[in-house]
Amino acid sequence: MKLAVVGTGLIGASFAKAVRRRGLSSEIVGLDADSENAATALRLGLIDRVSDAVPRDAAAVLLAVPVDGIAGWVRRLADHPGTLFDAGSVKAPIIESLKGQDGALPPRYVPCHPIAGSERSGPEAADGDLFAGRPAVLTPVPETDPAAIDQVRALWRGVGADAQLMSAADHDRIMAVTSHLPHLLAFAYLDQVEAGHLPHTGGGFEDFTRIGAAAPHLWASILGLNRGPLITALAAFKESLDSFERTLANDDREALEALIDAAGRRLTRDQKKQ
Amino acid sequence: MKLAVVGTGLIGASFAKAVRRRGLSSEIVGLDADSENAATALRLGLIDRVSDAVPRDAAAVLLAVPVDGIAGWVRRLADHPGTLFDAGSVKAPIIESLKGQDGALPPRYVPCHPIAGSERSGPEAADGDLFAGRPAVLTPVPETDPAAIDQVRALWRGVGADAQLMSAADHDRIMAVTSHLPHLLAFAYLDQVEAGHLPHTGGGFEDFTRIGAAAPHLWASILGLNRGPLITALAAFKESLDSFERTLANDDREALEALIDAAGRRLTRDQKKQ
Repeated sequence: MKLAVVGTGLIGASFAKAVRRRGLSSEIVGLDADSENAATALRLGLIDRVSDAVPRDAAAVLLAVPVDGIAGWVRRLADHPGTLFDAGSVKAPIIESLKGQDGALPPRYVPCHPIAGSERSGPEAADGDLFAGRPAVLTPVPETDPAAIDQVRALWRGVGADAQLMSAADHDRIMAVTSHLPHLLAFAYLDQVEAGHLPHTGGGFEDFTRIGAAAPHLWASILGLNRGPLITALAAFKESLDSFERTLANDDREALEALIDAAGRRLTRDQKKQ
Repeated sequence: MKLAVVGTGLIGASFAKAVRRRGLSSEIVGLDADSENAATALRLGLIDRVSDAVPRDAAAVLLAVPVDGIAGWVRRLADHPGTLFDAGSVKAPIIESLKGQDGALPPRYVPCHPIAGSERSGPEAADGDLFAGRPAVLTPVPETDPAAIDQVRALWRGVGADAQLMSAADHDRIMAVTSHLPHLLAFAYLDQVEAGHLPHTGGGFEDFTRIGAAAPHLWASILGLNRGPLITALAAFKESLDSFERTLANDDREALEALIDAAGRRLTRDQKKQ
């Protein structure tokens, strides 16, 4: 099985490393618009060779490119006989933009999103265990080739991920709450922070703001693409925030404590196990 | 030098452990309304003995109790000849509530806040390095005894903290931004999270929400006591959030990217070093 990896950044290079380590592929070919990334991936032994084009005989092609570049790659590879799958963190808008005049998606494209990442980026940060134990969400449409779904599911499972099928709309709504809203809040929060504050921060601050250091272009694309569900999640958040603000304005400690208590319960270990 | 520690939870027990390890005290006496906490601190060798009252000959008394209990302890110990200092994360309201008819604070009380903590609590979590390299803010008033300030500053330095003097108002404004607002946002954010979301979260989510698991009563007291500066910080945050929301509503990716970029720059390493 020959695998092509388009984009040899953290996600693509980590996938290549995991596939290679587990012997899931006979050859891994890497492509990257950033030739230095591809050269590094080759030097580190994460891929077998660098190519300018996706080899015709690649059985599977991972499109590990930023979300705003995925649809273009699927279109470009519409006639490729292999299975295409991506790792983008927004799904429905990519699917919508790919629908042809008949409203159908290319049947051998399996929209995917492995919920895994790192603060680090680039092939140097490749981690063969990045996907181990992490969810890998597949959001196929009715016309998606079942054999392609099986193949992609086997690949994610092969690198240790927990492959899950879900609708693109459900995926995007969930990600709006679990990932995109926290990023938005961290960005807007950081706007309040001045240089003079930084010597007076504790560990909680560092945790809270870590995601605020995310790559601006990448995250503008992600938040922008998923703006529908994100605006909905934001509206609900603002209502909650208003409830907290009212308890502060009224100095109602009991009501404030009840709100904090209810919030903390959202995180209980039992819920996490569900 | 005999030290009394009122409250043998994480902060009090960690201070005792650090003082003992560095030989800064001849005897450490522990008090706790929760007798089990005090017994555990004794069993773990963090304090030399448990007492029901602050010994008259204690040269320094750390009030490591929740913020809503500090003023009461200072009042109760108004006639104690030793130096009193606390570890509460809000300062001005405690100082205000302690001012006598003459508007003066007890001169041997030095308001303090070590910016250090842990997700863990109780004497079992005591860490002799908890304050090492962390800021310890002192917010004395004009009538505070300079000798008491020096003594408390030496104690914080003795346990490795970076002792800093600042006005209570400045401290509370800074903490509203660097600590209290992030907690408030994490609480309000968690209100959006459902059990079904939790299997689909990444590392960023865990970082972002860690502070949301804070103790409800303690944090209702902290946020409630500092509600003035917190409401001001919250108003500024909401303006920033509105700016982000406008870029989403208008699908203006360029403006969104510029906002994200500006937010990330608040965290640059160079600023941190200032």
